[in-house]
Amino acid sequence: MITTEETFEMRRRGVMLVLSSPSGAGKTSLSRSMLEQDRHITLSISVTTRPMRPGEVHGKDYFFVSHAEFERMVEKGELLEYAKVFDNYYGTPRGFVNETLGGGKDVLFDIDWQGTRQLAASNRPDLVSVFILPPSMAELERRLRIRAQDSDEVVAGRMAKAQAEMSHWPEYDYVIINRNFAATLGQITAILNAERCKRVRQPGLDDFVNSL
Amino acid sequence: MITTEETFEMRRRGVMLVLSSPSGAGKTSLSRSMLEQDRHITLSISVTTRPMRPGEVHGKDYFFVSHAEFERMVEKGELLEYAKVFDNYYGTPRGFVNETLGGGKDVLFDIDWQGTRQLAASNRPDLVSVFILPPSMAELERRLRIRAQDSDEVVAGRMAKAQAEMSHWPEYDYVIINRNFAATLGQITAILNAERCKRVRQPGLDDFVNSL
Repeated sequence: MITTEETFEMRRRGVMLVLSSPSGAGKTSLSRSMLEQDRHITLSISVTTRPMRPGEVHGKDYFFVSHAEFERMVEKGELLEYAKVFDNYYGTPRGFVNETLGGGKDVLFDIDWQGTRQLAASNRPDLVSVFILPPSMAELERRLRIRAQDSDEVVAGRMAKAQAEMSHWPEYDYVIINRNFAATLGQITAILNAERCKRVRQPGLDDFVNSL
Repeated sequence: MITTEETFEMRRRGVMLVLSSPSGAGKTSLSRSMLEQDRHITLSISVTTRPMRPGEVHGKDYFFVSHAEFERMVEKGELLEYAKVFDNYYGTPRGFVNETLGGGKDVLFDIDWQGTRQLAASNRPDLVSVFILPPSMAELERRLRIRAQDSDEVVAGRMAKAQAEMSHWPEYDYVIINRNFAATLGQITAILNAERCKRVRQPGLDDFVNSL
């Protein structure tokens, strides 16, 4: 693990790290590993109107709210981005993200191209977007089949959705082909550590150099 | 070491990685380690009119040329950048850099702020610039004194030159405070590996996705 401990002694600006990929390309496992190995990044927890599933925890997996509460959040501008998927709404609470970035920490977003596009539209210099591609469609299908004992129809539907999601890779800053989990995790880690070294993310540098 | 082996299977655009720092901040050791640990990056060898010193090798340390030959290279546009330091000229041959980048390899530049500014003026998207700062002026002076048994006057002169060089950190993309050699090397490695994952540096992605 590369340590960037030293840069944290000075005032810094957090990174909004977006990971997007078609379902089955490895994004969820990669996000989990990023959060485990680096205590300076924290997950943005979405708010949703969809019902809680068995095993899910409010405030960990999602913030589960009613349709009325979601609409109130949209009206008050409390969401950085939101989208409707089937009959349910999903969104990113603005307050948590701003507090985390302000504290010099980074925020990881596990969102799709629509959410990324909305975040990008706000033109925040904090945004760093990474798209994960599968090595092949055959491998993507194999991973989707391994995951659950779904019918051919369900898998076919997921493959079609994956293809649509994948078409948005040209909108991202970085693109990684996930042939090997460890290599891909290393590349995402490198991206985060490199972004932390960017001059513009270290507003304390001026004071540091003046103090020399 | 993070491996980015996978990305090299596809057509890519090489990175021009510039490392600058005041003398004594560790740039030379860092450059050497980067070249040793990564076979996809190669050093840009400068051409100079200064006399060869004992132990130096033509084509390894520098290309040693006459003033007349240097002037011919400038006139023919064969140098990407050049500068006069005291009575000697130093420059970067364009041909070697373009051939290396065209072959999908990266080129490391160990040059000062003047050379970096000239490279930046050509507005090449390949350019990635990193400035290495010392942790303190006392530490910089300590390193300058360790290196050679120089007189106080010589050290004072180098410190003044270091201060002038250091004032140019705001012109660089990335800034690293070299408190610890291994951490700094890890950060430069992360920057190079991250830059390799940038969408714009992987012109083969279009073909890859179409082949899926």
